[in-house]
Amino acid sequence: MTTALRILVVEPDENRLREIVDALTDVGWTDVRALPEISSIARTVQDYEPDIVLIDLANPDRDTLENITHASGAGKRAVALFVDQTDDALTSAALKAGVSAYVVDGLDRNRIKSVLETAIARFKVIRQIQSELDAAKRALEDRKTIDRAKGFLMRQRSLSEEEAYRLLRKTAMDQGRRVIDVAQALVTAADLLS
Amino acid sequence: MTTALRILVVEPDENRLREIVDALTDVGWTDVRALPEISSIARTVQDYEPDIVLIDLANPDRDTLENITHASGAGKRAVALFVDQTDDALTSAALKAGVSAYVVDGLDRNRIKSVLETAIARFKVIRQIQSELDAAKRALEDRKTIDRAKGFLMRQRSLSEEEAYRLLRKTAMDQGRRVIDVAQALVTAADLLS
Repeated sequence: MTTALRILVVEPDENRLREIVDALTDVGWTDVRALPEISSIARTVQDYEPDIVLIDLANPDRDTLENITHASGAGKRAVALFVDQTDDALTSAALKAGVSAYVVDGLDRNRIKSVLETAIARFKVIRQIQSELDAAKRALEDRKTIDRAKGFLMRQRSLSEEEAYRLLRKTAMDQGRRVIDVAQALVTAADLLS
Repeated sequence: MTTALRILVVEPDENRLREIVDALTDVGWTDVRALPEISSIARTVQDYEPDIVLIDLANPDRDTLENITHASGAGKRAVALFVDQTDDALTSAALKAGVSAYVVDGLDRNRIKSVLETAIARFKVIRQIQSELDAAKRALEDRKTIDRAKGFLMRQRSLSEEEAYRLLRKTAMDQGRRVIDVAQALVTAADLLS
C-alpha cells in the first residue's frame, strides 16, 4: 500500500503519541492527526475524514465502545484498537462495534504498518459482506412491498396479478419513478385508507 | 475463555513448533495436535475437528491459501495465520480465504493467547453476519420460487393468486412437507414440461 493514509490517532499519553506518530512517519504515513480525548472523536472524524482511526487505550469501557461505534461511522472506516488487557466480553463487544484490528498488549512500532494494512484489508472484506447483506435484505423487502401493492390493486380494481404488475410498471414509467417507489406509495396509502 | 480449545498447529519448523505448543500449554490449552505439512490439512481437520487452526508460515503462496480455505471449512472454524512478510494482495487473499487473525512477523508467545481468543471472537462475529446473509438470500430465493409456483398454478388451473397459494399450502400440509419444497417440486416439473 503506497498511497498516503489519513490516520487519526487517539492517544491520551503524550509520550506514546509521539512514538506512534514517529512510527507512522517512518513508514511514510505523514497525514496524521492526534486526538488526546476519545470523547470528542465524533466531531474530529467528521472534520478530518480519516481512512483509519488508531485508538490506544489501557482499559476501554462501555462509553469508549460507544465512541468507537461513532468512530467507525457504522462501518464507514477502519478502526484499529490497541488495549493493554481484555476479557471475552470486551473483545466481543469491540469486534461488534466495528473494530477491524484488535490488538492486546502489542503496540509495537515495528508491526504498526502491517497491523494497519491488515485492518484496512479486513475492513474492506467485511464491508463487502455487509453490503451484500444489505442488498439481499433490501431486495427481499422490495419484493414484499411490490407483492403487497399488487395484492391491493388486485382487490381494489379486480385485476389479475399480471395486470396489477403491468399497472405498477406503467405508472412508474409515466411518472419517471422506480416500480418499488410506486409500490411503496401505494402500500402507504393502503395503510392510511384501511 | 476458560474452556479447553482443540487447536491444530501447522508448523514445519520443529523448534518453533515446540515453542508454540509450550506457549499454548502455559495458558492451559493442552488439546493440541501438530501438523508439519500444510498439504494434508484437509484430512487432519476432518479427523480432529479443531476449534481453531494456527498456521505459521514464512511465505504463503496460492496453494497455501487454497489449503487455508479447506482448513476454515468454508467458515466452519477459526484460522489464525502467522506469516513473516506479506503484501497487499496476499493480505487481502488471506482474509478472503476466511482467516480470522492475520499476524505479520509476530508469533510472540506472550500474545498468542489474546491473538487466538480475538480470532475466535472475530470468527463468531463474521459467522453471524454471514449466516444473516445466507438467510436473507435464501428467503429471497424461496419467495421467488413460491411466486413462480403460484404463477404456474394460476395459469394451468385458472386459479386466483390466493387460491394458488392455498393449494400449495394444503398440498404441503397433506404431504407433511414445507410450502417451499412443494413449490420447488412444482417449478422443477414446470421446467421439465415446458
